Amino acid sequence: MSYGDDRTYKKVEVIGVSKKGLEDAIQVAVSRAQQTLSKVSWFEVGEIHGHVSPDGKVSEYQVVMKVAFELT
Amino acid sequence: MSYGDDRTYKKVEVIGVSKKGLEDAIQVAVSRAQQTLSKVSWFEVGEIHGHVSPDGKVSEYQVVMKVAFELT
Amino acid sequence: MSYGDDRTYKKVEVIGVSKKGLEDAIQVAVSRAQQTLSKVSWFEVGEIHGHVSPDGKVSEYQVVMKVAFELT
Amino acid sequence: MSYGDDRTYKKVEVIGVSKKGLEDAIQVAVSRAQQTLSKVSWFEVGEIHGHVSPDGKVSEYQVVMKVAFELT
Amino acid sequence: MSYGDDRTYKKVEVIGVSKKGLEDAIQVAVSRAQQTLSKVSWFEVGEIHGHVSPDGKVSEYQVVMKVAFELT
Amino acid sequence: MSYGDDRTYKKVEVIGVSKKGLEDAIQVAVSRAQQTLSKVSWFEVGEIHGHVSPDGKVSEYQVVMKVAFELT
Amino acid sequence: MSYGDDRTYKKVEVIGVSKKGLEDAIQVAVSRAQQTLSKVSWFEVGEIHGHVSPDGKVSEYQVVMKVAFELT
Amino acid sequence: MSYGDDRTYKKVEVIGVSKKGLEDAIQVAVSRAQQTLSKVSWFEVGEIHGHVSPDGKVSEYQVVMKVAFELT
Amino acid sequence: MSYGDDRTYKKVEVIGVSKKGLEDAIQVAVSRAQQTLSKVSWFEVGEIHGHVSPDGKVSEYQVVMKVAFELT
Amino acid sequence: MSYGDDRTYKKVEVIGVSKKGLEDAIQVAVSRAQQTLSKVSWFEVGEIHGHVSPDGKVSEYQVVMKVAFELT
Amino acid sequence: MSYGDDRTYKKVEVIGVSKKGLEDAIQVAVSRAQQTLSKVSWFEVGEIHGHVSPDGKVSEYQVVMKVAFELT
Amino acid sequence: MSYGDDRTYKKVEVIGVSKKGLEDAIQVAVSRAQQTLSKVSWFEVGEIHGHVSPDGKVSEYQVVMKVAFELT
Repeated sequence: MSYGDDRTYKKVEVIGVSKKGLEDAIQVAVSRAQQTLSKVSWFEVGEIHGHVSPDGKVSEYQVVMKVAFELT
Repeated sequence: MSYGDDRTYKKVEVIGVSKKGLEDAIQVAVSRAQQTLSKVSWFEVGEIHGHVSPDGKVSEYQVVMKVAFELT
Repeated sequence: MSYGDDRTYKKVEVIGVSKKGLEDAIQVAVSRAQQTLSKVSWFEVGEIHGHVSPDGKVSEYQVVMKVAFELT
Repeated sequence: MSYGDDRTYKKVEVIGVSKKGLEDAIQVAVSRAQQTLSKVSWFEVGEIHGHVSPDGKVSEYQVVMKVAFELT
Repeated sequence: MSYGDDRTYKKVEVIGVSKKGLEDAIQVAVSRAQQTLSKVSWFEVGEIHGHVSPDGKVSEYQVVMKVAFELT
Repeated sequence: MSYGDDRTYKKVEVIGVSKKGLEDAIQVAVSRAQQTLSKVSWFEVGEIHGHVSPDGKVSEYQVVMKVAFELT
Repeated sequence: MSYGDDRTYKKVEVIGVSKKGLEDAIQVAVSRAQQTLSKVSWFEVGEIHGHVSPDGKVSEYQVVMKVAFELT
Repeated sequence: MSYGDDRTYKKVEVIGVSKKGLEDAIQVAVSRAQQTLSKVSWFEVGEIHGHVSPDGKVSEYQVVMKVAFELT
Repeated sequence: MSYGDDRTYKKVEVIGVSKKGLEDAIQVAVSRAQQTLSKVSWFEVGEIHGHVSPDGKVSEYQVVMKVAFELT
Repeated sequence: MSYGDDRTYKKVEVIGVSKKGLEDAIQVAVSRAQQTLSKVSWFEVGEIHGHVSPDGKVSEYQVVMKVAFELT
Repeated sequence: MSYGDDRTYKKVEVIGVSKKGLEDAIQVAVSRAQQTLSKVSWFEVGEIHGHVSPDGKVSEYQVVMKVAFELT
Repeated sequence: MSYGDDRTYKKVEVIGVSKKGLEDAIQVAVSRAQQTLSKVSWFEVGEIHGHVSPDGKVSEYQVVMKVAFELT
C-alpha cells in the first residue's frame, strides 16, 4: 500500500464477548473476524456493555466494535 | 450459550419495507435476513422513513435497522 | 420495483480512497463494491478524512460511506 | 424526474398527533402537510413522544418528523 | 399547573417489552411506571429493539423510553 | 386543544440575536416569529453562539432555536 | 472524599421550570432535588425549552438537566 | 447589519441535486432557495448522499443542507 | 423470564470510580447499585473520565454507565 | 477580511467558570483566551455544567465552549 | 514509527476557507497548520459551511476540520 | 481553587498509543501532555481505536481523549 493509490476498505460491525476484560473482548472479536474475513487492519470501539450475574459480579464484557480490512 | 463464554456476534444493517406498518416492515427485513444469514438473534431500529403517494397516503414504511446473529 | 411492495435493502460500510478528490474517492468505493456485491443503488457519506504528506500536501482523500443495494 | 437532473427538495419539520398509534400519527401529519405544501414525497421520523392520561393510559402519540417535497 | 409557576419534573428511563407491537410495549412500561412512581405525564421513545425467535419471527418488541412526571 | 385529538404542529428553525443575554436573544426570535408565523407555542434551544468585539467583550449572543406552532 | 478512593455517584434527570430565566430554572430543580435526594454535588444541562404565551412572551424556561450526588 | 443589533435569522432545510459534483449540488440548492426566499446568507451541509446508476457510476450527488437568511 | 412476556426494565445512571482500572470502576458501581436497587442484569458504559494527580499519574478512573434491572 | 479570500481559523476549547451566571461564565473564558491567544472572533457553547454547594445553592456555572480566532 | 511503540498525537481544530471548492479549503487549512505546527499527518472533516454573496453565488467554502500530528 | 471563583480551563485533544492496554494508552497521553502543557487535571476519553497486526493480534490501543488543565 502507498498513500495516494486508489483503495477501498470495508468495515464490519461485530461484538466481542469475554469475561476477562475489555482488551480481551476486543481480541476475541478480532480473532474471530480474522478467520472468515480478510486480514483485519484496525478496529474502532463503539459501545461497551456487559452482563451481571445474580451475585452482582460482572460476568462478561461485551464490546461493540467495527473491524476494518482492505478490499483487495 | 452461557454468559462468560467467549463469543462473537455480527450486526448487519438492513432496511425493511412494507406498506402495512412499522412492525411488518421489521418482520420483512428479519425474515429476509434469516434466509441468507445465520439465525437472527435480535434487531435494533435505527431510522424510520417512508414514501408518500401522490394522493397524500403513506404508501410504505421503511425501517432502517440492524440485525444481529452469533458467529459460531 | 413498485412502492408498497415488500422489499429489503442492505447497507455496507466502505471507505473509498483517492488522491484526486472527494467525488473520485466516492466513485472508487462504489466501483469496488459493485464488483463483489449486487448492484449498488445509492450511497451515504459518513465521514471525510485524508492523509497529508510530509511536504504538507493532501496526498489522498478517504471517504467513509455506506453503499446500499436491494436483497433480491 | 430523471436521476442526474438538477433538482432541489425542501424538508419541513412537523409533529403528527393521534390517539390511534404511530402509523396514524404519521399519516395525520402527512395529510396536513399535503394541504398547504406541495405534494409530499417522503417522510423521516425524528422522535416519538406521547401523552399519558391520569389513569395511566397513553392518550396520544406524537411523532416528530420531516416531510420532504420537490421545489419545482 | 399554570405556565410560569416554578415546577420540577423527573424523567426515568424504562424499557417496555411486549410481543404485540410497539404501542403495546410503550403501554406496558407506562402502566408499570404508574404503579410505583407518581402519575406519568408523558413519555419519550429512545430506542427500539426486539428479539427474534429461532424460526425468524419477531418474538417481542423492546422500547427504551423515558417516562416523566411532576415532582410535587 | 384536547389531548387525543388529531393535530399537527410545525417547527421552524430561527436564530435570535441580542447583546443583552441569552434570555433576550430567545425573546427576540420568538417575537419576530410571532409576527409572520402563527402564534408560537414553545421553543427549543439548539446551539448558543456569540460574537466577540476586538476589545474582548461579548458583543452579542446568538441562540439557534426552533419555534413550534400548531397548524390549524 | 479523596481522589483514588472507590466511590459511586448517581445521576438523576430532572426538568427545572421558572419564568425568571435559565439560572433560576436550574436553581429550582436543584433545590427540589436536594429535598428528597441526597445532597446534590453538580448538575449538567441537557436541553433548554420554554413555553410562549399567546401574546408572544416567553412565559417560562424549562431546563432539562441531570443532578448528581454521591451514593454513600 | 451591525453586531449587537437585535436580529433574527431563519434556517430552511433543502437538498441540492446535481450530477456534476458536491459544489455544484450546493449551488443548485442555493440558487433555487434564492428565487423564492430572501437572499441566502450562508449554508451548512448536513448529509451527503447520491444515486448510483446500474453501470456503477455515481449518477448524481444529493447534498442535504440548510440555507440561512435574515428575517428583515 | 421468557421472551414474549410483558416485562419492564429500569435503567439508572451511575458513575463508578476506582484507581485500579476501567473494569474495576465498572465493578464498583455495579456492586454499589446491587446493594440498594434490585439485582442488576446488565450495564452500558456511557463515558470514561478520570482524575490526574499533580505528578501526572492517573489517580482514578471514572466510568459513567447505566445499570439495568427488571421491575418485577 | 473579504469573503472569498483564503483564510484559516482555529478553535480552542475552554471552560469558563463564574458564580454570577451563564453570560458571565462565557465572558470569563473569552477574556482569559483573549490574553494569550489572538483576538477572539466568536464563541460556541458546548455544554453547561455547574457546582452545587452543600446548602443546595448553585455555587458556580461552568460553560464548556470553543473560542475561535483567525490564524493570520 | 512502528506499531506498538508508545506515541502521542495531538488534534487541533481549524477552519479552512477557499472560494475554489471543498478540496481547496481543506488544503488551505492544512498548509496553514503546517507552518506553525509540526508536520500534519492527517485531517478529519467535521462540518462544511459556506458564504453566499448577494447575487446567490457561493462565494466561499468553509471546512471545519481537525488536523493531527505526532507529539515527538 | 475555591468553588465560585472565576476560573478558565482549557481542553486539548490527544491520542495516546500503547500496546499494553487501554489504561496504559491513557497514561501515555497524560504523561506526554504533562511535559509541555501545564499540569493536567483530568481527562475524558472520546474514542477507542487500535491496530491489528497481520497475525490477528491487537498490536496497539489508540485512545482519543481530551486532557484538561487550568489556565492560571
